[in-house]
Parts: sequence; structure tokens; C-alpha cells
Amino acid sequence: MRPFEAADAAAVAALRVLAIDQVEAASSGHPGLPLGAAPMAWVLWSRFLKHDPTAPGWPDRDRFVLSAGHGSALLYALLHLFGYDLPIDELRRFRQWGSRTPGHPEYGLTPGVETTTGPLGQGLANAVGMALAERHLAQRFNREGFPLVNHRTWVLASDGDLQEGVAHEAAALAGHLKLGRLVVLWDDNRITIEGETSLAWSEDVPARFRALGWRTFEVEDGNDLAAVAAALAAAAASEEAPALVRVRTEIGFGSPHKQGSAEAHGAPLGAEEARLTRRALGWTIDEPFVIPEEVRRWAAASSAAGVAAHQRWRQLLGGYGEAHPELAAEWQRRLAGELPTGWEEALPSFAEGAGMATRQASGAVLAALAPVLPELMGGSADLAPSNNSRLPGEESVRAGLWGGRNLHFGIREHAMAAICNGMSLHGGVRPYAATFLIFADYLRPALRLAALMHRPVIYLFTHDSVAVGEDGPTHQPVEHLAALRAIPNLVVLRPADTHETREAWRVALARRDGPTALILTRQKLPA
Amino acid sequence: MRPFEAADAAAVAALRVLAIDQVEAASSGHPGLPLGAAPMAWVLWSRFLKHDPTAPGWPDRDRFVLSAGHGSALLYALLHLFGYDLPIDELRRFRQWGSRTPGHPEYGLTPGVETTTGPLGQGLANAVGMALAERHLAQRFNREGFPLVNHRTWVLASDGDLQEGVAHEAAALAGHLKLGRLVVLWDDNRITIEGETSLAWSEDVPARFRALGWRTFEVEDGNDLAAVAAALAAAAASEEAPALVRVRTEIGFGSPHKQGSAEAHGAPLGAEEARLTRRALGWTIDEPFVIPEEVRRWAAASSAAGVAAHQRWRQLLGGYGEAHPELAAEWQRRLAGELPTGWEEALPSFAEGAGMATRQASGAVLAALAPVLPELMGGSADLAPSNNSRLPGEESVRAGLWGGRNLHFGIREHAMAAICNGMSLHGGVRPYAATFLIFADYLRPALRLAALMHRPVIYLFTHDSVAVGEDGPTHQPVEHLAALRAIPNLVVLRPADTHETREAWRVALARRDGPTALILTRQKLPA
Repeated sequence: MRPFEAADAAAVAALRVLAIDQVEAASSGHPGLPLGAAPMAWVLWSRFLKHDPTAPGWPDRDRFVLSAGHGSALLYALLHLFGYDLPIDELRRFRQWGSRTPGHPEYGLTPGVETTTGPLGQGLANAVGMALAERHLAQRFNREGFPLVNHRTWVLASDGDLQEGVAHEAAALAGHLKLGRLVVLWDDNRITIEGETSLAWSEDVPARFRALGWRTFEVEDGNDLAAVAAALAAAAASEEAPALVRVRTEIGFGSPHKQGSAEAHGAPLGAEEARLTRRALGWTIDEPFVIPEEVRRWAAASSAAGVAAHQRWRQLLGGYGEAHPELAAEWQRRLAGELPTGWEEALPSFAEGAGMATRQASGAVLAALAPVLPELMGGSADLAPSNNSRLPGEESVRAGLWGGRNLHFGIREHAMAAICNGMSLHGGVRPYAATFLIFADYLRPALRLAALMHRPVIYLFTHDSVAVGEDGPTHQPVEHLAALRAIPNLVVLRPADTHETREAWRVALARRDGPTALILTRQKLPA
Repeated sequence: MRPFEAADAAAVAALRVLAIDQVEAASSGHPGLPLGAAPMAWVLWSRFLKHDPTAPGWPDRDRFVLSAGHGSALLYALLHLFGYDLPIDELRRFRQWGSRTPGHPEYGLTPGVETTTGPLGQGLANAVGMALAERHLAQRFNREGFPLVNHRTWVLASDGDLQEGVAHEAAALAGHLKLGRLVVLWDDNRITIEGETSLAWSEDVPARFRALGWRTFEVEDGNDLAAVAAALAAAAASEEAPALVRVRTEIGFGSPHKQGSAEAHGAPLGAEEARLTRRALGWTIDEPFVIPEEVRRWAAASSAAGVAAHQRWRQLLGGYGEAHPELAAEWQRRLAGELPTGWEEALPSFAEGAGMATRQASGAVLAALAPVLPELMGGSADLAPSNNSRLPGEESVRAGLWGGRNLHFGIREHAMAAICNGMSLHGGVRPYAATFLIFADYLRPALRLAALMHRPVIYLFTHDSVAVGEDGPTHQPVEHLAALRAIPNLVVLRPADTHETREAWRVALARRDGPTALILTRQKLPA
């Protein structure tokens, strides 16, 4: 690894100043996290992240997830400095209507943004899905001499991310599945909106993660670039288990009057405090959004390894295509999100009047499609036998054996949906998630994000309506159909019989720009 | 503690057989948990639980929460054996329309059922709220020589409860607040619906709970009554922190062909297997629902300590009323769920055309009501400054200082709502929960249960509509109003100005049979 030089310090300062400038220009936003976390972000992006700023869609890039989406100004500063297609004028329009620099990062809007974040906990759970998709595809596609899929997933998470239940559920599953290429950097700044995190939080977070099977690392001073680099190198040195790197930072670092306080979190510093902060950071340029050219050059040089890796990967893909033409064709097809020609011929026919609940019909469709749609993978939050959601003849995904297509999510509906979002965002797989319709409520925040991100995740919600019967009102969905139909860009289909179930699957699979919920019954309903 | 005798073994067998009989009679239900967990339930109810079966509403009773609500047959067997108003004929009608023994326990329907459970994780989080309400009221009402509030909260939780994010969030807060009178018995049976828990779960649960600040205890053999009792005694011996007692059990214990397998979880054993299980348990009566009278007598004798404690408590309350008549009157009023006479006079008036967002008006109402409604307590999931949800002049709740009325829930929306349910169920307080409207999705399962249980929890959902602006679509509620209005028995009010905000609070507080959501704006909206 290249040693750290004065240019690195200048780049860190540039990230901080760009974040301040964006928030001040918008008179709105969150300067606190960017000021505290800029050094770890710089170390990660300049020394570890495998990325090619000119090709943000490179399938074998490392994924970077800013789970703490409110720190978007930092992400935009990174993307800009490293040469992604995000000119400085976009940073000037931070949080403005029509800009590519919205208040929270939005997938599909800004090159290099891997997922939409803001609702806390979701990004970390998405990252678990990305890391899982990576291992799955590696086992499916990599061949001797052709490590086609060979990347990591990095997360920058806040205190809030680590308090949310969805992130805990996902972390538990990541530890269970030993997703060792997942590294979470925890921006431990000890401040939330209401004040010190100690108002509501006193757990030993690393001990918790170790209990979940993670490796943990500590950086005492988040401004110490070499210490951050050493911790990330240690985290990346083994792939036995996912890694949590706790990095102690100061929220609002550099702000003479707001550093270390909740005031720095979510409001502009103000013109005078911004000026003082620039000075404290050793920044000598008064004009906002002005970055010395050598900082940009340094950033570009820092991602040279990634650019070169992308070149080599292109050659690798070429060789792979010659050595394994069928696999290569499947790879291209799946990465493009296209279904195989003629897939619909595999859709089953049902006898007229088949005495079958729609969940059973759905299971039959899944069974029929599994052989022709190898990208289809998913599972249930521990209700597979009831949801008829298992792909027959396919293996279960386990630690080290990630090539299976049946997922056991455990009793973790929310993480299930967020992990499916991450798998879908990664690309190459078509994930589905199954549970009782009543528990759609448990995963609703993640489902909404799938709709917002236009990701074609499929949900199997079985045991529709009060016809569920004797399990009682805690298990009887009354308002859920209406509540789901209210979500923009979610297609909700409620097939009435076997034929409609098959057609509903046809619609769901053909859909490329958003999620579909299939509402299925426990019993065959009376005609 | 009375030593264990043959009669205890007979009582445990009776619980098991009654559970089998209910499930067989219904041809539906979950025999697995009751068969495995009957011994710990018996030990708890006969030796530790402070309860008076003839007075299930006794305010100072210990609370027992069956978080694993699918094990309802065990709870009904307990209530029946101990002499609650649940005759054997009700057990015969298990899971039948109109019975008091529904598929999952329902608060308000069955005497002795403290909360509606079934959706996993909720019960444990409710229990955290109950334990918090107990400590809060103890500090508010107890006086020298008058320990009016002096009880524990016990939980029986399953693997699934401990996997759910909401339970994790609540456990983290319970550890933070050192709710040392909360004891969770974990029925560690290593089986879920899809099979072995090891399919999806490999964490070190006790280590996780220790990381959250809990004390942990282990029982290697859940059939060893003395070992269970020793662990519960140790858990209750200190109140430094909440306690998790891991009890190793066998799901479906006694069933020759289904013990230890997922088959025992959620389906009847079948007539022949039920017969074999009775034999294996040493049960000599073939006829279902027949329990020797001496078992009932033994159970009644086992709760004699609780009955006596209730008698003493009545005397205590009498003395308290003489020594502290004003406090006693407030106690009675609050426990009855009645608001003080003339409380509405404290509602503020707003000047015509006050330039105020409804969230600000709501904050003003809260400030005006705080002095006259001492039962009002609540807080935000780390958005108090934005939600205007803090009661001015009141303390924050902290470990050891539970008498405050401002709660810091941390970034844990789901647990916040479930904890508020528990506080409301406990009685004596009127809880409220605040967050952005968009994050209503995070807490929706708990909100639905408040509606189902007719608990008057109040939700403050601020930052309504796309008028939130530059935080972007992850923070802009579009479908949330419609989705909330679809929930039966939830009153949703969306006041348009300061006056309507005051009236909305009047409605919410006067409501006694269900929750109310107040939808509030960030800015004053244009007329």
C-alpha cells in the first residue's frame, strides 16, 4: 500500500470542505458525519476500494454502501473527487430539486450510488445481500483461472444503523453465513440527534458482533490514516467472517464550536462557523467548491489500481467467454437482467378446477421455473413449508456453500426484504422473499425501498385474509392488501385461482422496474 | 422455597397433557413448545410468579408474558390449573370461534393474559415496557414503609422471539436502563418451522445479551425442576440488570416419534402419537381433559404465597391511603385510566393565524398538559427536537432514575411502539411515541397490536407529506396516511392548524379503547 503523504491530508480536508460547502449552499443537510468520517472514507476509497470511476457499473467492482445516508454530502464529495460523473456544479445544487445530489443518496440517480439510504439500518442489511450475492455468483460462475466474481462489500455505518433491529437481524445472518468479504466501518462518534448516544445506548457493540460471529477491530483515532488503514488491512486479511471496524471519530470535526455536539449533526454550521472550520482544517481557499487540481489528480491516482483491475477483468471476461461460452452467455444475460429466451414455456398448466390453494399453485410454478431460471433464488422467514417457497432439488445456502438457491432467512422478515434488495442491487440474481401476508408489516420499510429503487424483488405473501381462520386476529390480514396497494411502484397481484397464479408469476418475473407482491391463499377458496 | 415433590411432576405432566388435548381437540395448534417448556412454566408459576388467580387485575401482580404466543395451549393450561376463570370447557374449545382460548393469546379476552402475542418479538418488547412502567411507578408512588409497586416481569420467549429485530432493540434498551426486575426464560429447543435453528442461527445468544448489559444464566436440562428453580432464584437474587435464563429443552418432549423435530412445532401429534405421548409422560388417564383433583389443589396451594401477598397488599394500600391520601387518589385515578377532573382547562389557546407548524402546536399542547397529566410519559426514537415531543421541565428516564417522564428510545422505532404497548398494558401511565411519519412503517406491527388490544397509545407522526422537501423520497410519506387509516381501531387525525391540533390531542387523550395517531407537519402549510 502506498504510504500516506501530505497529499492525503489535503484530500481529506477537501472532502470535509466540500461537505461543508454543499450543506452551506443548501442551507440544509448534515455536516457532522462527513467531517468526522472523511478520513476513513478517504483511506477506504484511495487504498482499498476496488473501483473504476469511469465504469460505475463494472460488475466486479467492490460495493460501497453509505448506510448512514444522511452523510450524503461525504459520498458526493468522494464521487466528485475520484472522477465519477458528478461535476462540481451538481455539488453546488446539493439537496435541490432536479439535482443528482439529493438529501439522501438515491440509487439510479447518481453514478456510484449503490443503494438508496436514509432510513437507518437498511444500507447495512442491503450490504449483507450484496455480499451474499457475490459469494453465490462466485461459486456459480468462477472457474479455475477465471475468478470472474471476486470483490468485497464495504459499509460506512452510523450509531443509528447499529441500533436498528433490521441491521441486527442482517448482521446475525451475515455472521451465520460467514460472509467474510463484508467489512463494516462504524463511525463511532457517540452523538445522535437527541444528544450523547449514552442517553439510550450503552451496549458493548463489538462484543455483540463477536457474539454474532463477526471479527472486530478498533481504531482509537479516526483521524489517524495509518491506523485506519492498518485496521482495514487486518479486516481484509481474512475472510473467515464478516468484520466490524470501530472507528472513533468526532462528529463535526474541525468546527470550533460544534465539534462533538449534536448541533453538528443535522444543520448547517452557518457562514461564520463554516469559515472558522475551514481555517481549523488548514484550508486556505475561501471560495466554496474550489478544490486544487492536484487533489483531484491524487484521488484519480489513488483509484489507479482499481482502474487497472478493471482492465484485467475485461481481459479475464474475454478469456472466460472463450473457455466457458455457455457460462459466459448466462453471465451476460443475468447481469443484463434479461430472462432466457423461451422461459415462459416452462410455466405449468393447471387442470381445470384443480383443488389447490394459490400458495400451492405458486409452489408448482416455482418448481417448474427453477430449472430454467437459475437466477431465481430466495426463501422464507422460517415459513417455507407454509409459503411453498422452496425450490425443489436446489441446495440451501450455507456458510461456505453459498451456491445454493434456497435461503433460510430465520425469523427475520425485515432483514429478509432488505437483504433481497441488496441481492437485487448487486445484480445477477432475481431474489424472492416469502412470509405470511400479515407479516408484510414487519418488512414494509424495505419493501418500500425496493419500490423506490425500481428493483424487481418478488414477495410471496401467503395466508391472505381472515380465511386464515383459527390462528386468530394476530395472523389475519385485514388492512394489508389496501396498505400494500398504497405503495407507489409496487405491483400487487392477488390471483384467484391456479391459472391466475401462473399469470401473476409471469407478470412478476417479466417486470424489470419494480417489485411485485403476490398475495396467496392458504386454502382453495370456495368459488 | 418448597421442595419439589411427586405432585410437581404430576402437575408438569398435567400441563403437557392438557396442551396435547387442546391441540388434538382443535385438530390445529402447536404442541411442541408446551411439551418442552411445561417444566419451566410450572416452576415459575408455582414458586416465583406473584399472582392471585382470583384477582388477575391486581395492580402489583407479577406480569407473565408468553412472547412465544403460538404456545398458547400451555398458557391456557396454566391459567386453568391455577384456578383462573378459565374452565375446562374453554380448553375443550381451543381455537374455536367465540372461545376464550384463541389460537394466540388475546389480551382482554382471557383473564390472566397480559398481552396479545403471536407476531414474534413483540411480547418480549412489551415486557420491557411493563418492567419500565413498574420501576417508573415505584419511584413515583412508593413511600417509606409503603412499597405499593413492587413486582417483576417474566417472559417465556422462543428462538424466534430472540431472532426478531424488535426484541433485540427492546433488549438493548432494557439493558441500558438496567431493568433488573425483568427475567426472560428462553425456551432453547433448537427447532424452528424450517428445521434446526442452525439453518439460520449460530450466534452466542447469552454473549449477545451480556454485551447488552444483561445477566445470563444457563439450565442444561429443562426437565430438571430444581435446576430451573435455582436459575430463576439466581436471576431474581439481584436487580442490577435484566436477566436471560437459557433453558435447554426438547420440543415436543415425550412424543416418541416427534420429540426434537420440527414436526412437533405446529401441527397436532395425531391421535395415536398423542396416546403414545401420554404413556411416555406416565399419564394413566386416557380420557382427554381429565385432570386429577389433587393436581388442581397442588396448583392452588402453589399460588398461596401470591394470594397472601395480595391480601397484604390490600392492607398496604389502605394504610397508604391514610398516610398519603393525595397520592393514593392519584394512584386510583391513574390505574382506572381516568383523566383528572378539569384537565381540559389546561389545553392551550392559540392566537388566530399563529405562524406555527402543527408539530409546534403539538409541542405547546404537550407542554401545557404535562403538569396536569402526570401519567403522560413518552418520547421519540431520537427525533425529539424535530418531533417537539419532549415534556419540558420533566426529567429523562435513566437507569436507576426511572421516575422521569421523558424517554429516549434510541434509533429503535419498532421497540419504541412495542414498549409503549407494554407500558400501557401495565397501567398507570399514558405513553406516547414520536417519530417521522415516514417511519410509521418501522413500527407498524406494534401499532397494529395496540389497535387490536384497544390500548390508548398516542403516536406523534411529524413531517407529514412531500412538504418535508429536501430530505427526499426516503423521508417523504406518500402512502402512509392511507396505510394508517386502513388499520381497524386506529384513529388517525391530521389537524390542519393549531386549533385542530389542540382538539386532536383532546380526542386522543379522551380515547380509552384504542390508539390515536396524530399526523403533524414540519412547517406551517400555506392556507
